[in-house]
Amino acid sequence: MESSNLARAFTLIEPGPVVLLTTQDGQQNNIMTISWTMVVDFKPVIAITTGAWNHSYAALRDRRECVLAVPTVDLLDQVVGIGTCSGADTDKFSAFQLTPLPSKLVTAPLIRECLANIECKVIDFIDKHHIVVLEGVAAWFDTARKEKRTVHAVGDGTFIVDGRRLDRKKLMAEKLPPGV
Amino acid sequence: MESSNLARAFTLIEPGPVVLLTTQDGQQNNIMTISWTMVVDFKPVIAITTGAWNHSYAALRDRRECVLAVPTVDLLDQVVGIGTCSGADTDKFSAFQLTPLPSKLVTAPLIRECLANIECKVIDFIDKHHIVVLEGVAAWFDTARKEKRTVHAVGDGTFIVDGRRLDRKKLMAEKLPPGV
Repeated sequence: MESSNLARAFTLIEPGPVVLLTTQDGQQNNIMTISWTMVVDFKPVIAITTGAWNHSYAALRDRRECVLAVPTVDLLDQVVGIGTCSGADTDKFSAFQLTPLPSKLVTAPLIRECLANIECKVIDFIDKHHIVVLEGVAAWFDTARKEKRTVHAVGDGTFIVDGRRLDRKKLMAEKLPPGV
Repeated sequence: MESSNLARAFTLIEPGPVVLLTTQDGQQNNIMTISWTMVVDFKPVIAITTGAWNHSYAALRDRRECVLAVPTVDLLDQVVGIGTCSGADTDKFSAFQLTPLPSKLVTAPLIRECLANIECKVIDFIDKHHIVVLEGVAAWFDTARKEKRTVHAVGDGTFIVDGRRLDRKKLMAEKLPPGV
């Protein structure tokens, strides 16, 4: 994991991949799978939808910190497994053979096996809609990783893998933020 | 366009495709390109991020209605074009050769050329974060369309086209909402 340009971190979330969210409650690391995410600002600010029905939520509420880790297609069965069991009775790092690494600015861990990690602080809870607003404070990218294709949850138990990348940078030039 | 199951409409947005958002201000139809979207509830409830910097925002604020239309890869240059000009001085349906069709429950139009359309009512403005919360009230799908691959904006002027679809329905069965 190499330190990565925070100004580009929103580009990890904007395409809409499934992500893993890690928390630390003071005693234990936990991981949840989440696909309900949205970029809100280039800083980056990222909204997610979650609530008390997820075991991770208590730690997120209490500690106001998490890591958004971006898995690739080779991790899909771990991503699905993490999303279908609970941290209430499972040590997910151990059960799914993932490696927690220390973050720089938050206590929630990075996930060594993921393509990228964004350390986040909670900046708001919008309880009426179960939206949590996060600000990314540090970003990490595994530049040595060969498999870079992420997966997109459809929500019906199927997942779409990244296909070809099309370049429209020239047409979009005036709309791109600085540093991207 | 055939009427589609509203209970499945969130599956059009959850994978994170670029969408087109149409509005009607009482005089003119408009279209904007948006990739900052998030499913908030299966109903469906869908959050988007937008604000007064987009010309469409005034109509969205005033009329509290819109349509989320899901374009496919063959429409990418129109999607980019729509996102890089303004409804303040451009009739985008005409300029990009798209066909407005009447909606059933809102005044904003469907887009004939898109794979799917979701008619939406605004249920909340979260001004602090420029988040607008929409509830889908009707959905349409072009079942005859051959090209079904959507595109995912990365945010740096590149776009990822849908690749293979992987099935994990059995593993996910307990987590899927009814009707999906």
